[in-house]
Amino acid sequence: MNHYSKIFSKYLSDDAMEAVIADEALIQHMLTFEAALANAQAQLNMIPLKAALQIEAAIRQLSLKPTALAASTLQNGIPVIALLAHIKTKLPDGAKGHLHMGATSQDVMDTAQVLIIKNALEIIETKTSVLIKQLTKLSKQFAKTPCMAHTRGQQALPITFGSKVNAWLQPLQRQLHRLKQIKQDLLVVQLGGAVGNLAAYVKKGPLLNKLLAKKLQLQPAASWHTQRDGLAAFTNWLAMHTSIMGKMGADVMVMAQSEVNEVTENVTGGGKSSAMPHKNNPVLSEALVAIAKINAGLQQQMLLAMLHQNERDATAWILEWNALPQLLNYTATALTHAVSITTNIKINAAQMLANIEKFKKAIE
Amino acid sequence: MNHYSKIFSKYLSDDAMEAVIADEALIQHMLTFEAALANAQAQLNMIPLKAALQIEAAIRQLSLKPTALAASTLQNGIPVIALLAHIKTKLPDGAKGHLHMGATSQDVMDTAQVLIIKNALEIIETKTSVLIKQLTKLSKQFAKTPCMAHTRGQQALPITFGSKVNAWLQPLQRQLHRLKQIKQDLLVVQLGGAVGNLAAYVKKGPLLNKLLAKKLQLQPAASWHTQRDGLAAFTNWLAMHTSIMGKMGADVMVMAQSEVNEVTENVTGGGKSSAMPHKNNPVLSEALVAIAKINAGLQQQMLLAMLHQNERDATAWILEWNALPQLLNYTATALTHAVSITTNIKINAAQMLANIEKFKKAIE
Amino acid sequence: MNHYSKIFSKYLSDDAMEAVIADEALIQHMLTFEAALANAQAQLNMIPLKAALQIEAAIRQLSLKPTALAASTLQNGIPVIALLAHIKTKLPDGAKGHLHMGATSQDVMDTAQVLIIKNALEIIETKTSVLIKQLTKLSKQFAKTPCMAHTRGQQALPITFGSKVNAWLQPLQRQLHRLKQIKQDLLVVQLGGAVGNLAAYVKKGPLLNKLLAKKLQLQPAASWHTQRDGLAAFTNWLAMHTSIMGKMGADVMVMAQSEVNEVTENVTGGGKSSAMPHKNNPVLSEALVAIAKINAGLQQQMLLAMLHQNERDATAWILEWNALPQLLNYTATALTHAVSITTNIKINAAQMLANIEKFKKAIE
Amino acid sequence: MNHYSKIFSKYLSDDAMEAVIADEALIQHMLTFEAALANAQAQLNMIPLKAALQIEAAIRQLSLKPTALAASTLQNGIPVIALLAHIKTKLPDGAKGHLHMGATSQDVMDTAQVLIIKNALEIIETKTSVLIKQLTKLSKQFAKTPCMAHTRGQQALPITFGSKVNAWLQPLQRQLHRLKQIKQDLLVVQLGGAVGNLAAYVKKGPLLNKLLAKKLQLQPAASWHTQRDGLAAFTNWLAMHTSIMGKMGADVMVMAQSEVNEVTENVTGGGKSSAMPHKNNPVLSEALVAIAKINAGLQQQMLLAMLHQNERDATAWILEWNALPQLLNYTATALTHAVSITTNIKINAAQMLANIEKFKKAIE
Repeated sequence: MNHYSKIFSKYLSDDAMEAVIADEALIQHMLTFEAALANAQAQLNMIPLKAALQIEAAIRQLSLKPTALAASTLQNGIPVIALLAHIKTKLPDGAKGHLHMGATSQDVMDTAQVLIIKNALEIIETKTSVLIKQLTKLSKQFAKTPCMAHTRGQQALPITFGSKVNAWLQPLQRQLHRLKQIKQDLLVVQLGGAVGNLAAYVKKGPLLNKLLAKKLQLQPAASWHTQRDGLAAFTNWLAMHTSIMGKMGADVMVMAQSEVNEVTENVTGGGKSSAMPHKNNPVLSEALVAIAKINAGLQQQMLLAMLHQNERDATAWILEWNALPQLLNYTATALTHAVSITTNIKINAAQMLANIEKFKKAIE
Repeated sequence: MNHYSKIFSKYLSDDAMEAVIADEALIQHMLTFEAALANAQAQLNMIPLKAALQIEAAIRQLSLKPTALAASTLQNGIPVIALLAHIKTKLPDGAKGHLHMGATSQDVMDTAQVLIIKNALEIIETKTSVLIKQLTKLSKQFAKTPCMAHTRGQQALPITFGSKVNAWLQPLQRQLHRLKQIKQDLLVVQLGGAVGNLAAYVKKGPLLNKLLAKKLQLQPAASWHTQRDGLAAFTNWLAMHTSIMGKMGADVMVMAQSEVNEVTENVTGGGKSSAMPHKNNPVLSEALVAIAKINAGLQQQMLLAMLHQNERDATAWILEWNALPQLLNYTATALTHAVSITTNIKINAAQMLANIEKFKKAIE
Repeated sequence: MNHYSKIFSKYLSDDAMEAVIADEALIQHMLTFEAALANAQAQLNMIPLKAALQIEAAIRQLSLKPTALAASTLQNGIPVIALLAHIKTKLPDGAKGHLHMGATSQDVMDTAQVLIIKNALEIIETKTSVLIKQLTKLSKQFAKTPCMAHTRGQQALPITFGSKVNAWLQPLQRQLHRLKQIKQDLLVVQLGGAVGNLAAYVKKGPLLNKLLAKKLQLQPAASWHTQRDGLAAFTNWLAMHTSIMGKMGADVMVMAQSEVNEVTENVTGGGKSSAMPHKNNPVLSEALVAIAKINAGLQQQMLLAMLHQNERDATAWILEWNALPQLLNYTATALTHAVSITTNIKINAAQMLANIEKFKKAIE
Repeated sequence: MNHYSKIFSKYLSDDAMEAVIADEALIQHMLTFEAALANAQAQLNMIPLKAALQIEAAIRQLSLKPTALAASTLQNGIPVIALLAHIKTKLPDGAKGHLHMGATSQDVMDTAQVLIIKNALEIIETKTSVLIKQLTKLSKQFAKTPCMAHTRGQQALPITFGSKVNAWLQPLQRQLHRLKQIKQDLLVVQLGGAVGNLAAYVKKGPLLNKLLAKKLQLQPAASWHTQRDGLAAFTNWLAMHTSIMGKMGADVMVMAQSEVNEVTENVTGGGKSSAMPHKNNPVLSEALVAIAKINAGLQQQMLLAMLHQNERDATAWILEWNALPQLLNYTATALTHAVSITTNIKINAAQMLANIEKFKKAIE
């Protein structure tokens, strides 16, 4: 939320995800919400069609920079007040009162967040599929390659390298299955009005919710202003995703360790040292382990954010603003690295065998 | 794991759950595993029937105290070695070699853990059902009782007390739905052998896994020694459960605050102070909030424990031993308190109305 | 707080510390507080000397079991109400009003907690001194023993084993220095009265605070009911202590890894496996790593507990009750294990040299 | 590390601190290190003076953008390799070998980090002094203003508003005292060479360390590549700082609550709602509470990062890269907001009194 490093932008961040979570995207989604809301309200005769068209036109014209919202966000603890004010500068007076009609800031921001998640999921699902494919390939290719198992840091008995790969692959397959259910409570519109009861819309509230959802290609939902379980279930899924890859990274690191020497993370040459030219560091695996730990901490924040007091609670909400984009970006980064590892890893089957032989002698 | 307070045993612990997670239960489940394993192996002609019967008889006779395992657990980092030694003291020499045949300590301990979880879930599901029933009742009873909403710590606009209750109820209903899927990867047997590949059983491994699972009333499963996603998905569910109740506790606390005075946590008289006889403290709600924060931290541990390196990793496994029983006990405790609150809460509808009226004047 | 395992009582708990943090100790300290308070108040002519003597006598007679406080702790969220009621059963009517005069539950409990910490520190400091001594010895003994350094999981360049030991030793030495300052804000009495301002004592408050502190061998202090910085600074010190030992455990694990084989954690034979008789698992080092992670999570709770709202906040206070005893016990356990490792570790200097030679060939 | 929002840049970030932790600053400090190292080495006759002058000149000329380091950072897991390559493009061949002589990447990066911390501390100390001054003023001004205390969410007994302010002030005063000691292990140079033993410098290592430290206005220190206790002690101090201000935020929120109405966070008008024009939300206090929770999580990361395996461990180091800048920025942000609150808060002493009177009636 409050620090970004271009230096580390390829190592601890993901290009494609950065665009999805960017301020510019958040603004665009908030504008999309306001346009769709007006459009839906016109369709249900809640505001004049003319006003809706004027609102849509104003939003199309608007070129709004993130910095333009910063001062008002400090003042109000949300960017929506400034966003609406900027739209209104492009609206005739008669239409101003029809903008954002009956909605509350949290409706805009939560829905925009969901639209970000939707786009983020496209990246995450695509990358996960690629990773699963690569791991499946590795698992088959090395299904019969003997390799020493280690339990509690010690050589145990031989297994195959394929079965090691399976331990990385199978949880990811279950993750895809889990995601299906998680999406149901996740890709939903937020529209509750000031205090969550759609009061301003009288009887048309549920209809409007449904129509707005449709326009935004989301599912309708009763207001979840204070019910953050759908989000926390999803972010735990993200943290589990990076923990699964973190285990893979930890395994690669042991196998790449000089004395073990069973794999090389990057066949084309891994990380170099400024002091030791012979080094070939498994730098992507290290990132996988670190990212898993970071995401575990961020998931704890999301669980704390479920303690959303009363009908709106920024002491909780801010935790989500902070944690969610980082969780998404770190997950995408881990996926990119995991795919990279599975593409470039060099398997030293001869050494695997040699380690087994040496072990057999040692325990004779 | 390493501290229990009888003083706080009713406030921050749950009787029924204590029995489920107790050492005695863990030992019993481990013994059950060994008996069922021998029994299944005899059925599949992997060990002599006579040996299996002797093993079962020995286990029936055995009265094993937790302290009897402590020294060996320090020595070996697991209690299973001592457990097996104790069983063997009751076995004829000829049967000793057939005990625990082809299995590894983690098979025993993980399966025992799953059997604990199975029993824990009975408590948790029963209590959750009661809580849902109570909340449903409250939600209907006060569906039209006006009550002030608060956003960002400030009075906002009137809603109903029923809708406040709904914000506690609806996530719990979704939790039941989530649990169905979570159970699929959770209530499964662990049987992988020394390094997870069932090698000692040659071709009979999968059959044995299936039969053992059936005997233990669990589902069969490929070895998940190093794949802890099923556990972490479940414990996140637990942490979400307590966060949902934590939000309820936080809400009750605000409404019970002297200046708001809209509810009294306990109509029969709440917490007293040693210094101030007039106090009526919402002590159960406070516990709900605190428990939510504790469980959020424990879920982070479970996510870290997914970084299970190699084929067995006690630096990760110990985290589960520490976190899981606490998560179960805190969740049961929160449920007990939440049910208690919903049973004994006193709703002051007149004050709710008065607060709304006062507010209307204030913003005129 | 709500789970203790006798099975793991030697592996993940410490005998001596258990006694220090036990319910029985907490009760004893609370009784000591009440007796000392009465005694000090009599000395300052705030209550009759006779009443003080009766209170001291009653407390001496009292045999109070932890379970006797459980029901009231559930009712009131604190055990002090029941504790006072039990003392009063031994008091003549005329003395009852002089018991706990002007004090509040938090005064009793916080001071009792501090007395626990004081005793805990004796254990921790003694064990730390032993550990420092052992490490100093090892560091000198192997000051010139060549040993390969690893950076980022790869062999780097030779150092000495002594310098590895120094990396475990030096932070512990700094810890002793840090502890001196931390104690200043830690070993202080709590006496603030109902709302922290000693109001009930009118002008004698500060004098009473000083005298009570003296009797309890603590330092006097303005009420810190809601100022938990002294505690959090101390618990961070504990978590740092276990992280330092966790790094040692992690290092030992790599060196004990079969392929590296430079040390054996326990020369007399380490952890065994139920499936693999050849194993010699570094089970104490594993515990050191796991404990470090657990304590890091508990320190986060202590930081959250500093968000102590208003003049008393059990949503924060409960976090301390949960975290502090565990932090103390895990720290003592880690120290016991670390001392054990440094006593029993076997250094394989020949293998260290062989690994260096092999490495030199590899990078030629 | 991987997300920054301009929208929230004034609410959840601090301008001045952003500049201190920026990539540009990190690069500048790394360059400063290399120049000072060459300079010191020339002074000690370890490299030719001419080479040192050429290195300093090259560094002065170099204009290096953060993005120019990103690809190499992905490749090597550190930006130093690219940094050195860029410097070398400006160096005559004869000087290239004298650049970064005997140093390792971690020397550069850790020292640069310390230089960032040094600058960050100037901001933090200045802001803390201002805050302490403001709180002292408030504390005196309202030393006798009666105000109701709340314990466990309920009205307790009257205290003064001044004593409430003292509970925010006193811990900050102790923090200043703590900082003095913490700085001793913190503002130190890192110079250990490839594996921490200054081997490349033979006997001149300690002299060089001292001279380099002097040039950078830091203290000399034995290599602390793997000893991260100084950092973790400091970051806990930061997290404690934000927890202290979080308690202040939590208190202001209760007092600003409509039904209590004892303070208004911002006399000139606080946060507005997009739906409810009457709102005056205490948005800075909310941020203080949220920031405290975020920093508590980041401190846990720093404790995990102390598990720095072997002689360099990026799975730990990355955690610091991620957590430290955020901790610094959130701490500065909290300080800015806390100063802002103490400047603009409106104290409603009449209402404080009215609440006390109303309470007295209620408990009669």
